[in-house]
Parts: sequence; structure tokens; C-alpha cells
Amino acid sequence: MIAVFSDDATIRHALAFEAALARARAAEGLVAGHVADEIAACCETIEINAMELAEQAALAGTLAIPLVKRLRAALPRAPAAALHMGATSQDVADTVLMLQVEAAGRLLSSDVKQIGEALRALVERYAATPAVGRTLLQDALPIGFGLRFAQARAGIADAARRLEAEIAAGARIQLGGAAGTRDDLGGKGAAIAARMALDLGLATGAPWHARRTCIAGIGSALGILVGALGKLARDVSLLAQNALGEAREPATEGRGGSSAMAHKRNPTGCQVALSASIRAPGLVAALLTGLPQEQERGLGGWQAEAPVLADLFLLAAGSVSVMATVARGLEIDEAAIARNLNAAGIGADIGESEVIVAAMLAEQRD
Amino acid sequence: MIAVFSDDATIRHALAFEAALARARAAEGLVAGHVADEIAACCETIEINAMELAEQAALAGTLAIPLVKRLRAALPRAPAAALHMGATSQDVADTVLMLQVEAAGRLLSSDVKQIGEALRALVERYAATPAVGRTLLQDALPIGFGLRFAQARAGIADAARRLEAEIAAGARIQLGGAAGTRDDLGGKGAAIAARMALDLGLATGAPWHARRTCIAGIGSALGILVGALGKLARDVSLLAQNALGEAREPATEGRGGSSAMAHKRNPTGCQVALSASIRAPGLVAALLTGLPQEQERGLGGWQAEAPVLADLFLLAAGSVSVMATVARGLEIDEAAIARNLNAAGIGADIGESEVIVAAMLAEQRD
Amino acid sequence: MIAVFSDDATIRHALAFEAALARARAAEGLVAGHVADEIAACCETIEINAMELAEQAALAGTLAIPLVKRLRAALPRAPAAALHMGATSQDVADTVLMLQVEAAGRLLSSDVKQIGEALRALVERYAATPAVGRTLLQDALPIGFGLRFAQARAGIADAARRLEAEIAAGARIQLGGAAGTRDDLGGKGAAIAARMALDLGLATGAPWHARRTCIAGIGSALGILVGALGKLARDVSLLAQNALGEAREPATEGRGGSSAMAHKRNPTGCQVALSASIRAPGLVAALLTGLPQEQERGLGGWQAEAPVLADLFLLAAGSVSVMATVARGLEIDEAAIARNLNAAGIGADIGESEVIVAAMLAEQRD
Amino acid sequence: MIAVFSDDATIRHALAFEAALARARAAEGLVAGHVADEIAACCETIEINAMELAEQAALAGTLAIPLVKRLRAALPRAPAAALHMGATSQDVADTVLMLQVEAAGRLLSSDVKQIGEALRALVERYAATPAVGRTLLQDALPIGFGLRFAQARAGIADAARRLEAEIAAGARIQLGGAAGTRDDLGGKGAAIAARMALDLGLATGAPWHARRTCIAGIGSALGILVGALGKLARDVSLLAQNALGEAREPATEGRGGSSAMAHKRNPTGCQVALSASIRAPGLVAALLTGLPQEQERGLGGWQAEAPVLADLFLLAAGSVSVMATVARGLEIDEAAIARNLNAAGIGADIGESEVIVAAMLAEQRD
Repeated sequence: MIAVFSDDATIRHALAFEAALARARAAEGLVAGHVADEIAACCETIEINAMELAEQAALAGTLAIPLVKRLRAALPRAPAAALHMGATSQDVADTVLMLQVEAAGRLLSSDVKQIGEALRALVERYAATPAVGRTLLQDALPIGFGLRFAQARAGIADAARRLEAEIAAGARIQLGGAAGTRDDLGGKGAAIAARMALDLGLATGAPWHARRTCIAGIGSALGILVGALGKLARDVSLLAQNALGEAREPATEGRGGSSAMAHKRNPTGCQVALSASIRAPGLVAALLTGLPQEQERGLGGWQAEAPVLADLFLLAAGSVSVMATVARGLEIDEAAIARNLNAAGIGADIGESEVIVAAMLAEQRD
Repeated sequence: MIAVFSDDATIRHALAFEAALARARAAEGLVAGHVADEIAACCETIEINAMELAEQAALAGTLAIPLVKRLRAALPRAPAAALHMGATSQDVADTVLMLQVEAAGRLLSSDVKQIGEALRALVERYAATPAVGRTLLQDALPIGFGLRFAQARAGIADAARRLEAEIAAGARIQLGGAAGTRDDLGGKGAAIAARMALDLGLATGAPWHARRTCIAGIGSALGILVGALGKLARDVSLLAQNALGEAREPATEGRGGSSAMAHKRNPTGCQVALSASIRAPGLVAALLTGLPQEQERGLGGWQAEAPVLADLFLLAAGSVSVMATVARGLEIDEAAIARNLNAAGIGADIGESEVIVAAMLAEQRD
Repeated sequence: MIAVFSDDATIRHALAFEAALARARAAEGLVAGHVADEIAACCETIEINAMELAEQAALAGTLAIPLVKRLRAALPRAPAAALHMGATSQDVADTVLMLQVEAAGRLLSSDVKQIGEALRALVERYAATPAVGRTLLQDALPIGFGLRFAQARAGIADAARRLEAEIAAGARIQLGGAAGTRDDLGGKGAAIAARMALDLGLATGAPWHARRTCIAGIGSALGILVGALGKLARDVSLLAQNALGEAREPATEGRGGSSAMAHKRNPTGCQVALSASIRAPGLVAALLTGLPQEQERGLGGWQAEAPVLADLFLLAAGSVSVMATVARGLEIDEAAIARNLNAAGIGADIGESEVIVAAMLAEQRD
Repeated sequence: MIAVFSDDATIRHALAFEAALARARAAEGLVAGHVADEIAACCETIEINAMELAEQAALAGTLAIPLVKRLRAALPRAPAAALHMGATSQDVADTVLMLQVEAAGRLLSSDVKQIGEALRALVERYAATPAVGRTLLQDALPIGFGLRFAQARAGIADAARRLEAEIAAGARIQLGGAAGTRDDLGGKGAAIAARMALDLGLATGAPWHARRTCIAGIGSALGILVGALGKLARDVSLLAQNALGEAREPATEGRGGSSAMAHKRNPTGCQVALSASIRAPGLVAALLTGLPQEQERGLGGWQAEAPVLADLFLLAAGSVSVMATVARGLEIDEAAIARNLNAAGIGADIGESEVIVAAMLAEQRD
């Protein structure tokens, strides 16, 4: 996930944008094919010092200006003049961000699938095992031990489904030009945007420079996913308390030790996921705060989004990854489960736990 | 919207829950029909002092306990014993909340429709009127004056669509019993839940006591809607600056005056919407923060949700309402638009503004 | 605390503002003494329908306009003309808010003192009682049982101290007039503000219409206090888990029961405090978000503050109150403490627990 | 500021912690002086691959474990055994964080001083220049042009003062050992902590592993500072609108250009500060959310803090830096100020602007 949002990836996507723009303009007859080819070739072969460019981009407030400058310097006069025509910096920045969102979403989906499978195995195995159900942190009534994990799994699946839908709807090409009117695209703006979208693997549509509900939607979905993973982490960490001892995280070389108490097995995976669930809500709030952006392209709002969205994807990725490891290797102590249930003195009637679990597994596939 | 979340409405929905539960249990043969009828009748006719009940509910941490106590006192022995059987306090609280969400969502949808219509009229009228397009708060290139409102309108429509989808998917009956196992429903839990859902006009499904992604989804969608309305308010308030003077809010008796400067026409509607857009993101963050709830039913997390969700609906309702008034009565000064464009010295080529506007209006119906 | 922020209190403070302004202007020779007396007398005796006024205030976007109108209607010509002179709506609103902050701060301080005393007693009694220390939710090494409460107490005391300092520095009179220049105060603005501050029991200083760091400071301090109380609630609720059983909330008539499981003793006080700690951070974020206010008096930013600050005070008050009750009546099970320590097999060496506790108690008086 | 929070700085501080601990233990007679010297020497000379260590630290969930392992491998037996004795991972992590906070605070203070000086010059020069005062984004009454900047300056100064006070009170040594009882420090814990604090330039006090109000206080103060800088940026960006044209950012090579409109002078400095003011509130909320940490050392809460606090310092540093540049080079157009005032038709009476400005400058030194 770090690679997805790296400077290298950002530059690669920005070059792909310029190449796609040139090709689409050529296809619509606005520039000669060989000029577009020269641009596209240059975008593929040019060597960029990522560190140096990042510094200039930070100063300019946009990546596009120093990048386009470099490309122009490397191109003959005609393609240099045709380069970037019809586009504005934010067109590049937003399209790059959406290409990263697309890639990040695919990564996450694959990890979520793994956690779903691992939890399904746990749920199926322990659906009928009587255990203490706990409410308001107090012993309540018996449940099937697998029911709690089935609930966590269903929450994660619901969150993942929402995220996929938001990305499918929101990951669109941005092509509006300086004021969002597609003024310099020879009246072919919609067609050029559609060609570029196809080329780059994004959806198409009207410019959305100051209309950021898609970003907010994707960010919210990420925040919900991190929270749903936090629910699983909360439950595992409570089960792992020594006085309960019903489950504990798998031992991992180099993880979960204590610098002062060598014997401890700390729930370090849960720690990562819980930590993420504390950090994510404020990041989502930042994306929502930025929505009332000014006029055709705002000041400060959209520039705040990319690092925040990247942080959310990184938190989600870290959380999914550790909790997949935890779910796959979770050590269940059936004797402790039975002992605690016996001590609670609440019988062993697990009600309709199994029916509920089956319904949830049927509804929420991996 | 205040009525939707009033104590009276809360009590009415809670009584409807108990009546629906009794009827559903009777339909599944768990209790005699006439006993259920007595319960339902009592739920319809009982007089409750809302203020008094609210105080006891605050102390008990739940409405259900004092309400059920009152009903039991008003019922003969058999229905008193059958009342509430199989349900827990949170079943009542969550179902009540979802009935309020449903009602609130319908209210909002109707107001959003009005704002969409008002903006459509504005957009159509001014789609081709050349005006200064502004980016980063600087004059940039000409746009069709209607384009900016078309963008705001599309953002609001996207947000409204998301909210409707979240409510349709998330507004579900809650029926799980004390530990979410439907332990006291005679093995008929799924059927009883389905009957109650039908009776109350909600969707059905497995219990979701500690699985709150639906709440977070609805709350996020509300936050996005408030932000999208804030975008419109931001633009109107900037246009209304005296130095621009391209638009101003309609004069409303009793609104927008100044206690010290009688001549001013303040953008008070925009103020309400911008104020809401500052408050909403933190409320959404609270809902996300509460997601990692403990075990079968958590401590503190779900109890935080109802007032926060109500606040979000109230902010959204206030914002939609004022901005509908603003959109309907917005006074446009075409001379000022032309004067500003002329002063900017950027020509009058509005690019593909009209095509873009038409595409957005076609995609986002009212 | 509800009374402090009620409509009645708001109106009473607003009337006090107008009276103080009239008296101060008279003292500086800007208006005849008897005219000021008539205004002051009217402010004391006028009967205001709070509900009706609130509706008009909501429409006007400010309380001052309809209130001043009512006062003018009740006054003879000369005092009617002199009334409110030199002030703007926000002067009234901000001064009222600060009078409420002052009163709310006093209320909170008194409650915090009680929680400090109750915790001191607990800490002193159990400072040397060996108990399981727990880190990352795992048994770690022995601690003095009182140490954990000493830490919670110190956090609350630190938060209370910060809040008192913020209120002392921030609770200032607002008197700037329409554009913050004190244009209509006959060149005596500073003197009039100082007199009014003295009269009303606030600090004085320059106008601060669009400079809201004091509000943000008070709000942050409240958020920290709510979090510090949440720390205590977290610890009590974990100790009260049946498998640990080291402490439990006192039984309170009408509180902590379960509608489905009559035998349960739920940690309902902790629930209130934990719920507050989930809600407060987003409210603080809203206050911070509103800081970049426009020009002399902003649009939307300051209008968002009063309800958010009131919510923060209400959450803090609720949290302090329930946790004071919990701290005073907390039931400690020394046998369970000993049993758990024995089961942990980590000895009974509590290190320097007692020394640390003593140092913290000495530093943080009640 | 990036250097302050770099991996290299983190490792250097962690090594300083271990050296200071060894020296302090020697001074209290718990270990031979030459053993402590060997440890201290090793901490100064050891070469650490920062990248490699960071990976292991990420896996272990703490830096201390792999770092201590490396040091032990590089030391003879006796110092290897004595190393880190009495400390736990969080002791290292928290002390390192506070050393970084101290350094970061010094950096910020110096930049804030520069912005204060630059604004003082602006304020003094234009205190008496009549200009349009604007409220609710509408022309209101005349002000001295310098008054608006005096207000922004006072807000920044107030925020900087709060931050300095929070750091002075909160930047403390952490030394508690595994469960916060200083169990392995031979009964000399307080003395050892005091020596280490002196050695490292921090304050001393009781362990504060799960008592994080100081972190929340520092974070809140940073959020308020970012918001106060955002107020300045908001005002500059509004003044720079072409239709007003009263001020504009200085031209900076490589900054503020447009990839599509070469003639534009974008307020890129304001953009950076406004973007920061959108991001900071959610980060503060995360710190507040983490306050209710579990027991002696929590799970997830404190681990979330360091990256969030670093982000806040980075946002503040970026914002202060750009706004200092903006303030120093701000181009004021007196003709435009006069023209706008004339067009507003509100006279030129600036009330007590100069008096207010003088009072604020006197109170808030640079």
C-alpha cells in the first residue's frame, strides 16, 4: 500500500495521464498522431528524480507544473507545445489520485477476502460451542462462540461492500481544464474524457473539480472499514485477557513481546487495528470538512484530500493485514470457554445462535 | 425534523415495537391472540407523561425499562407477563431509532427534491450566461454562470442518493434478545423479526446489536449531504460579496438583518448551512469512533449514537430547508455578472459549459 | 448544567448585557443617568416569552434583534433610542456565552472537587494493596491497587486545572460594535468595556469577534476532561467484568438494571462517561474547524460555536456527575483482588507504588 | 521539522534515553560507574541502520525491543545485562516523543516570532488607513486596515503562548517500568527519573503511561495554532480576490503559478495554511479519542499518538513557514483599499481602531 501512494507511483500515473490525453486528442483529430506518439513515448521513457520533483511540487503547490516543464524540455517543439493542452494541474492530480484509489481498493479487497475466509472457518467451527455472551462488559446469556466472530465478519463484509461500491462510482477521470469548462479541447471534451477514462481504466463523467462527494464517500467507507476491523480487534483483545483466556493471538516471530516481561504474549495485532480505529475517524472528518469548496476549484480544500485519503488507505491496509494474520492463527481455548461458562452459572442454551450464524454466512460471502 | 426525534415520537415508536412484537409472537403461536390484542390495545391507548419517563430513562440508561414497567402496571396478569418477552432494551432502542431514521429520511428527500428543482431552474436559465470562473479564489476563465450551480446541484443529488441507499439498506428491525441469540422466541426468531419488520415498515435481518456499520453509513451520508449543501452556501456567499454582487439571498421578513446596520442584507441562509457544515464532520467522526463495540452489546458506543444521529438529521434538515429558500429566491444581477467579466479581461468563451450542464442535469434528476 | 444553557438563562444574560452597557455609557457621560436607569429597570422587569423569542431568534440568526425590538417597544423614546447603542448582535451573543461559560465552569469545578475527594479516599485506602497490574490488556506485574485510581485522579485534576485556566483567561466581555472598531462609543470604548466587564464579572480586553482561540481553548480543555473521566470509566468497567470482579459500581435505584436480565448489575455510570468520551472529540474538532473566520466577523464559524460548547459542557457535567457517584460508592472486592493476583503468579512486589501515589496526591490537591 | 521526527532522530533520542538511564542508575549506586560508561559510550558510537530497525520496530510494535537487542549484542556481558534495566518499551517511546516535542516546539516558537514581527510591521503601517470592514462577508463599516491583521496576529500569539505553556508542563521524562511501579529501580525511582530528566532536558514527575492529558493538551494547542494561522490565510485570500485586490501574496519563484493560466498569481501560501486548518482538527480529535486508555498501559491508544502528534507539528510548521513568507512580503494596494471604501459609501470613520490595535500590540509581544 505504501508503494501505491509512493512518489514513484504518483509520477508514473501523472505521466500516464499526459500520454492518455495526447492520444485521446489525436484520436479526436486535435493533434497529429505522430505528435501524440512522441509525447506518449517520452512519458514512458523519461527519467525523473522523484525526490527533486517532490520538492519543486511542494513549492509550486502542484506536481503538474514542474513535471510538465521537464517533459517539455525533453520534447521537440511541436509535441512540447501540444503537451498538457486542455488540462489543468488539478486534472492531473485528481486523476492520479483516482488511479491510486483504484489500485489501493484492489489491494484491500484481496486482503479483506482473506480475512473473510479465515473468519468463516472460525465461525463454522465454533458456531455451536456454548460460551458466555457478554453485554455492557458483563456476563449475560450463553451464545454460540462463533456468533461473535460471525457478527464481526458481517460488519467487515458490509464495510468492504460499501467501499467497493464507492470506488466503482467515484473513481473517475478528471478533465475540466482551468475553469472546469473544457475550454481548450476543441469542443470534444466529453469524447476525450471518455477515451482517456477507457485508456486509464477509470469511469468517465463531467468535471468534478469542486464537487468532492466521491472523495468523501470513499473516505467514509474506509473509516467504516477500519472501525469494523476495530470491532474484531476489540473482541479478540478482550477474549485474550488472562482472566478470560478464551482466545489469543498467534505467536509471531518478532511480534508481541515485551522489552521488560519476556513471558508476555501481547495482542499486538489488535493493538495495530485499535490504534487505526482511533486515528481514522478524524481523517474522515477532515474530508467532510473540506467539502464546501469555493467556486470552480477551491483553495485549500482539495489540496488537503490526497494525503488524508492515503493515510486512510494505509491505516486500513495495516489493519486488514494484521487482523487477517490474527484471524488465521487465532488460538482458541475450548476448556477456558467451558470453564467460564460454567462459572457464570447461566446454563448453556445458545438460543438460535446457529441459525443466525448460518444466515449471516449465507448473506455475506467472502 | 424536531418532531421526528421528539420524546413523544420516541415513545410512540417504542409502543409500536411492543405491539408488533406481541402480534408477531401470536402469529407464530407463542402467545394467545387475545393476549397480544390486549397488549397492542394498551400500547395504543396508554397515556405516558413524556417528561417523567425521559427522566427515568436517563437514570436507567434506557427507555425500555420504565416504559415496560408502566405497561405492565396497566395490563392484566397474562399480557403483563407476555409483554416484551424475547426482547431486550436495545432491541427497542435500535428499532425506534431506525423508525426515526426512516421518517427523517423521507422528510429530507422531499426537501432535497425542492432544492433540486429550484437549482435546475437557475441552472437552465443561466447555463449560457458568460461569467467569471474563479479558481483558488482568483479570476480564471469564463464559465456559463449556471455551471457553478449545476455542480453544486450534482453534489447535493449525489449525496442524497447515497443517503437514500444507506437508509434503504440500514433501516432494519432489531430483535436479538439479551445476548443477540433470540433465545426466548421459541425458535421462531427469524420469522418473528420478519413479521415485525413488515408491520413496522423496516427491513429484516440478523440482530446487529454490536455491528453498527449501518449507523455509520447513514451518518456519513448525512455528513456528506451537509457538506454538499455547504458548497452551495459557500458559492452563494462569495457571489453576494458587495465587490462582486452577482447574486444575493432573497429578502426574508425577520431574517438577515443587522442589529447595528439596518441597511445590510446578510446571507443568513448561507450562514446556517456553513455553520452546519462545520459541525457535521465531528458528529460523523463520533459515529465512526463508536464502531469497535464490545462483544454482544457494547458499553458506551451504541448509547452515543442516537443523539449524534439526531443532531446530524437536524443539521441536514436545517441546511436543506434554508438553502431551498435561498435557491428558490436567489436574486441574480446579470449586469454585475457582465461587468465583472468585462473587468476581468478574459473574454467570454465559456467552453463546453452548456454541454457539461446538460449532461449533469440529465444524469441527476430532481 | 441544562439550566445554565437554557433559553431563560440566555435571555437573562442578554438583558444583563444591555443594562450593563447602558450603565457604563452613563458612567462615561455618553447618556444621562436616568435614561440608563430606565433601561436597566426595564431589563430587570420585562417579561419575555422564551419560546416565542427563540423562534424569532432562529429566523433572524441572532437573539439580539428581536430582544432589542421588544425592549424598545417597552421603553419611552429616549431610553429606546439609547438602548444597545454601540453594540452589535455578536457583542450580546458572545458576552452571553461567556457568562454561561463562567457559570458552567463553576458548576463543573465543584463536581470535579467531589470526584477528587472520593478518589483520594479510594487511593489512600488501597495504595498498598497488592493487585494485578495490567498492560496491553494482559497481566503484567503487581501494583498497589490504589495506583490505578491515583493515575486516573491525576489525569482528571490536570484536565480540571487546564479548564479553569482557560476559562479565567478566556471568559471576557465582547464589545466591539458592528465592525469591531467600537465606532459608536464616543471614544470611550475601552473604559466602557472595562466597566461592563466588572459589572458582569468577566475579564476585559480588545474585541475578539473573529479571534476565537479562547473558545477553542475552553472547548479543548473540556474535551480533555471528558477523556480523563473516560479513563476512569474504562478502568472501572474492566475491573467490573465478572471474570475479574475486583470492583463494581454501586447499586442505584432505577439504574443499571436490564430489561431482560433482572440479576445483572450493569456499569451504567461508566457507560455514560464512555459514551461522552466518544462524542466529545468531534465537538472539539468542530470548534477548531471554525477558527479561520472571515474578516471582522465571520459567516458560519462563530454561529456554530455556542451549541457545540454547550454540548461539551453538558457531556462533561453528565460524566463528572455519574463518575462522582461511581467513585463515592465503588464496591471493592479485596478477596477477588487477592485471588486474581495469586492466579497470575507474578508475586506481590508492588515496587514504588506507594511512593508514586503519595507524590501524585501531594501534587494534585482536590 | 521533518528532521525532528525522522527515524534518525528517534533512534538518537532512544540511545540517549538508555545512556541517561545507565548514568542515573550508576549515580544512585545501582550499577558500577564503569558499566554505565560502557553503555553510554556504546549508545554514542553504535551504528544503526535506521531503515532495517524501523521494519523490525513496526513488527514488534515498539522500537525499544530491536534497539536494545542490538545494543546488547554490541556490549560485553555486564553492561549488556545492566542495559535498559528498570525501563519498559513505553518509557523509551514516550521519552523520545517528548524530546521531539521539545525540539519541535523550539522550532515553531522561532518561526512564530518571525510571523509576529512581520505582522507587527504591517499592523503599525496600516493601523490608521481607512478600509472597508466586512462582516458576514458583507461590507459593514470602516476599519483601520491594520486592525484585521492585528486581530490575526493576536490570535496567533495567544495560540503560541498556549502551546509553549503546554510543552513546558507536559514535556516530561517517562520512567515507570513494566507496570508503572518503578519496580526494578532499587527504590530509587524518583531520584533516577529526576537525574534523567535533568540529563535530557525534560521535566520530571510520576510515570504517566496511561495518563495522556499532556499529549492531548499539546495536540490541542497545535490545532488551535493551525486554526489561528488559517484565520490569517482566510483573510489574505479574501483580500486577494481580483474584485477586491487590496492585498496579494508576494511572488515567489516556482510558487503560485498555474499550469494552464500563466498570468495568475495564486495565493498558494494561504492554500497551504487553509489546507492545514482543514486537516488539523481531526488529528486533535484522534488524540482526545485515545484518552480513555486501559489500566497501567493501554492497547492502541498511546500507539496512535506519536504519528498524529508528528503530523500536527508538521502541519503547524508548514503553515507558520508559508504564512511568515506571506506576511513578510504581502503586497498592499492602498489605491484599491481607498477605491473599495469609496465604493462602499460608508464614510471613513474608523472608530477606535488605532487604540484597539495599540492595546493588542502592547499585550502580545513578538
